[in-house]
Amino acid sequence: MVIGQSGGPTAVINQSLIGAVKEAMKHDQITGIYGMKHGILGILNEDFIDLKQEDDATLEAIAKTPASALGTCRHKPDAKDCETVFKVFEKYNVKYWFYIGGNDTAETANIVNNIARKNNYELRVFHISKTIDNDLRETDHCPGYGSAAKYVAMTFMGNDLDNRALPGVKLDIVMGRHAGWLTAAAALGKQAEDDGPHLIYLPEYPKDLSEVIKEVDEVYAKYGRCLVAVSEGAIGKDGKLWAEEAITEKDAHGNVQLSGTGALGDSLVEYMKNNTTHKDARFRSDTLGYAQRSFPEVVSEVDAKEARMVGEEAVKYAMKGDIDGSVAIKRIGEGKNYAVEPDLVKLASVAKETKHMPKEFINKQGNGVTEKFIEYALPLVGKLPEKGKFKEVPLVKK
Amino acid sequence: MVIGQSGGPTAVINQSLIGAVKEAMKHDQITGIYGMKHGILGILNEDFIDLKQEDDATLEAIAKTPASALGTCRHKPDAKDCETVFKVFEKYNVKYWFYIGGNDTAETANIVNNIARKNNYELRVFHISKTIDNDLRETDHCPGYGSAAKYVAMTFMGNDLDNRALPGVKLDIVMGRHAGWLTAAAALGKQAEDDGPHLIYLPEYPKDLSEVIKEVDEVYAKYGRCLVAVSEGAIGKDGKLWAEEAITEKDAHGNVQLSGTGALGDSLVEYMKNNTTHKDARFRSDTLGYAQRSFPEVVSEVDAKEARMVGEEAVKYAMKGDIDGSVAIKRIGEGKNYAVEPDLVKLASVAKETKHMPKEFINKQGNGVTEKFIEYALPLVGKLPEKGKFKEVPLVKK
Repeated sequence: MVIGQSGGPTAVINQSLIGAVKEAMKHDQITGIYGMKHGILGILNEDFIDLKQEDDATLEAIAKTPASALGTCRHKPDAKDCETVFKVFEKYNVKYWFYIGGNDTAETANIVNNIARKNNYELRVFHISKTIDNDLRETDHCPGYGSAAKYVAMTFMGNDLDNRALPGVKLDIVMGRHAGWLTAAAALGKQAEDDGPHLIYLPEYPKDLSEVIKEVDEVYAKYGRCLVAVSEGAIGKDGKLWAEEAITEKDAHGNVQLSGTGALGDSLVEYMKNNTTHKDARFRSDTLGYAQRSFPEVVSEVDAKEARMVGEEAVKYAMKGDIDGSVAIKRIGEGKNYAVEPDLVKLASVAKETKHMPKEFINKQGNGVTEKFIEYALPLVGKLPEKGKFKEVPLVKK
Repeated sequence: MVIGQSGGPTAVINQSLIGAVKEAMKHDQITGIYGMKHGILGILNEDFIDLKQEDDATLEAIAKTPASALGTCRHKPDAKDCETVFKVFEKYNVKYWFYIGGNDTAETANIVNNIARKNNYELRVFHISKTIDNDLRETDHCPGYGSAAKYVAMTFMGNDLDNRALPGVKLDIVMGRHAGWLTAAAALGKQAEDDGPHLIYLPEYPKDLSEVIKEVDEVYAKYGRCLVAVSEGAIGKDGKLWAEEAITEKDAHGNVQLSGTGALGDSLVEYMKNNTTHKDARFRSDTLGYAQRSFPEVVSEVDAKEARMVGEEAVKYAMKGDIDGSVAIKRIGEGKNYAVEPDLVKLASVAKETKHMPKEFINKQGNGVTEKFIEYALPLVGKLPEKGKFKEVPLVKK
């Protein structure tokens, strides 16, 4: 068998890797466990490591370590690459392929799967879901999301306390190119009515900046401060990214490069300073960085457990005789009875397309989330810190 | 007594506040404990809260909560403000003033102290050190630094794993206007020779960008990747901030506004892309945000304990008959025998000036830290996560 990781890292993607590897070690019919170095590049370059040589202590240490231990890549394979992948599999007698990643990864897996079929080569292909973006179809949620959501929620808790201490307008830019799931998680740490984030802007609800500054000004008038969560994929009513003017670089998948730059936050601050009615207000922005996907130890326990589970289940499906598919998560209990079970779905149904936040998760004004979203997301994140707060009995003035 | 918090928040500044308040509650001669809302503004506006009304559970919850629970401000009081502070103290019969903050805070405390003396008013004035920047004189280190250093070290650990998984040149911009203490903490999570950050640039060692890009290119040639820690206060040999061209806004203290903007990182990435010899390399930057000073629960236990201690000791000094001063920390044991004791130093000796990193903490090339720095800083941060790593036995190519 061959296993690899693709796309952006997460805090728990190694749980899936180790779950699959340790499950595979139990089955005699898997004679070799080959790790692809840097995703698809590892196959194209025949750059594999022998995972059977690794001891259990190492495997368990890696499971707890964030980011992709095998390495990953952003290379989008073309038709020729996919043919090469198939040829390498033939050469190395690879019968099982497990590929951990997002929708681009599922697409690649699907293409290679179809080539193998056409050639009557018996290949078992399994995609194992991961993405902090939570934007894969067919699955209730994606391993990696819960931990990233926890990091985002905690960052906003801290930023809200900071903003309360030193009032002003603070914009925090959150990852999520096409879907607002991770930005919406900013709301999960709210414990009091006046806690921030006070406004949340998501790609699913287009809004013009002229409307946004009015909403910011209203919150500022009410609380003397305003904490705003902005998705890097936020768009205007014309469908254009708020970031589009400022940032031009595109990655290999043809997407505008949004992460690793502060340009969106900086230009929003500029716009707001020029258009606010609160000319004395302090405007600042932070762009949450790669720490969203790789900060150590700020991990959701539920997420870590589920990431491990989908890795193990992928191998179990293969051993039971399933031919191909993507391992998804099905929610079978809500709230305090939260529970999940694995689910095998078609590769093609996960490939390419993005799962957006449904309307019922976004408030009517398009600047916040609903209680339904909180109920959906909180079990994935687990317990968040409690904030202490003074009663604030004022001293009588003399 | 009056107590307040000033300047930027930290993750443990409330430990100092609660330490002082709970100690004060033990002493009958302190008849009222008044909290200043938003630092000096709380005095100027006579906006106090009655801290004797708060119960112990609330106080302990606040101690564990990041950011300044009383509120803080960036207002730099002028001579007239300081006179007003003194008059308000007279009016409310304030005999003890405890003010938690950095060197600007110590300066304000010192000015008001001198006015009180001139007027033969018996005021006891104590400054309680805090700053994530660790740049106060007289003290071995500052409460707040250990926790911020831990957050920075962990962010770099995650970013290094991320950069290893998806190689490229990654620049992370760290807070620290005049001193490199916090940026230097990026090195604390290094566990292997090839772990990042591979380069660290500090305000204490001026360097031109033409030299920096050469060093980055060298590291990239060696490891196929490069993680760089850059202080927001990094300067060229002409003494000009790397950030100066890009950022113009100044805060009330006359300082260029460096935090809350991604401009420095973005312009460095631009410069490097244009000047690297590795034209195919991927360049990215993150600007670490306010989370450095207010992320919940990523706290150094040593730092939390010491922050509490300096708060308590300030009140003890006042009760023992000391008249004024700044509560500093004296290190009395190194390494495994790390231990500290409180120390009362002169207000004037802490005011205004910055403590820079000494030469022995910076390597000869001016692009990293020495073992001596690690020995100094690691006890303040405590245990960091262990990274798991494959042995990586390569599969023989067919």
